[in-house]
Amino acid sequence: MDMEKVNAMDFGEFVDVFGNVIERCPLIAAAVWSQRPFSDLEDLEKHFFAFIDTLPLSGQEGVLRCHPDLAGGELQRGALSAESLREQSGAGLAGLGAAERGQLAELNARYRARFGFPFVLAARLCDRAAVPRELERRLQRPPAQELRTALGEVKKIGHLRLADLLQSAPPRCTPAPAAPPAPREEGN
Amino acid sequence: MDMEKVNAMDFGEFVDVFGNVIERCPLIAAAVWSQRPFSDLEDLEKHFFAFIDTLPLSGQEGVLRCHPDLAGGELQRGALSAESLREQSGAGLAGLGAAERGQLAELNARYRARFGFPFVLAARLCDRAAVPRELERRLQRPPAQELRTALGEVKKIGHLRLADLLQSAPPRCTPAPAAPPAPREEGN
Repeated sequence: MDMEKVNAMDFGEFVDVFGNVIERCPLIAAAVWSQRPFSDLEDLEKHFFAFIDTLPLSGQEGVLRCHPDLAGGELQRGALSAESLREQSGAGLAGLGAAERGQLAELNARYRARFGFPFVLAARLCDRAAVPRELERRLQRPPAQELRTALGEVKKIGHLRLADLLQSAPPRCTPAPAAPPAPREEGN
Repeated sequence: MDMEKVNAMDFGEFVDVFGNVIERCPLIAAAVWSQRPFSDLEDLEKHFFAFIDTLPLSGQEGVLRCHPDLAGGELQRGALSAESLREQSGAGLAGLGAAERGQLAELNARYRARFGFPFVLAARLCDRAAVPRELERRLQRPPAQELRTALGEVKKIGHLRLADLLQSAPPRCTPAPAAPPAPREEGN
């Protein structure tokens, strides 16, 4: 999808396509539409990230609270967004044994109790063995520092989702072919 | 549901129950959880409304853009949220004939083109005959005035949804009984 096409979208189309760039926060995509036209991916993501940065603290915590646990109840119940399911599955989190799931559930619960938001990690940049290590490490951080780290992960996830959308022809609302041909720009 | 129960909710439960008080903006409920404890309905809704009021203009437009058209494509496709479906059906908008639907579609399109957000109206406070009249009237307004009016409607909808949730025992995620007994406080 090229930027000319993005800039020609009405807000309904824009929210259909970009509404989950920030997990379960279509409000942010709907707000970013006000800033069109966009010159490129970097320009578009700049507006998503600037919106998050200007939210009050409660709003930034709110963005984090819209994210699911990694390998948590929503994955078990089939209640993840399509993007989260792909990311968690890709990181091997859908194939954990009971012991690993139990360990992560306990760490996730401690993290939520300590910080008041769930542990957010760009799962596509990790493997399943790194997740509990990273969770244990971040559990030790001071809350203000951890909030910044977690918002940084939200932005990494958003960057990857935007890159997917802009490099692939079919928007989210259209059934994707089983194995779409990789565009030349794509590196993975 | 009493406020003691609300104040004891973790953020996951709170967003499950109150996530659609502002249509398709769970981020707002997730942010409001930071402000607990709440003393009563008025106090709780004050935090929802204050969050909207402190958003930048693009964010306020974003809130509006998360709303569906009245009697629009999402109603036809069965893609409305449960709350919107109940409200639009209750106002008789699910039973319009083709001519009335066509008239509303044309007015909705003109409104979206003029203001950059959909026509939002607390449908439960209207009947179907009033909707096109109100749409025609608001189409004439200056944009800044219309934005304020539309956000006022978002708050009326939010107030009614909060009142429903706080007066009824089962939260949104639990199947509700077919005919719940009306609590004594309920006026309608």
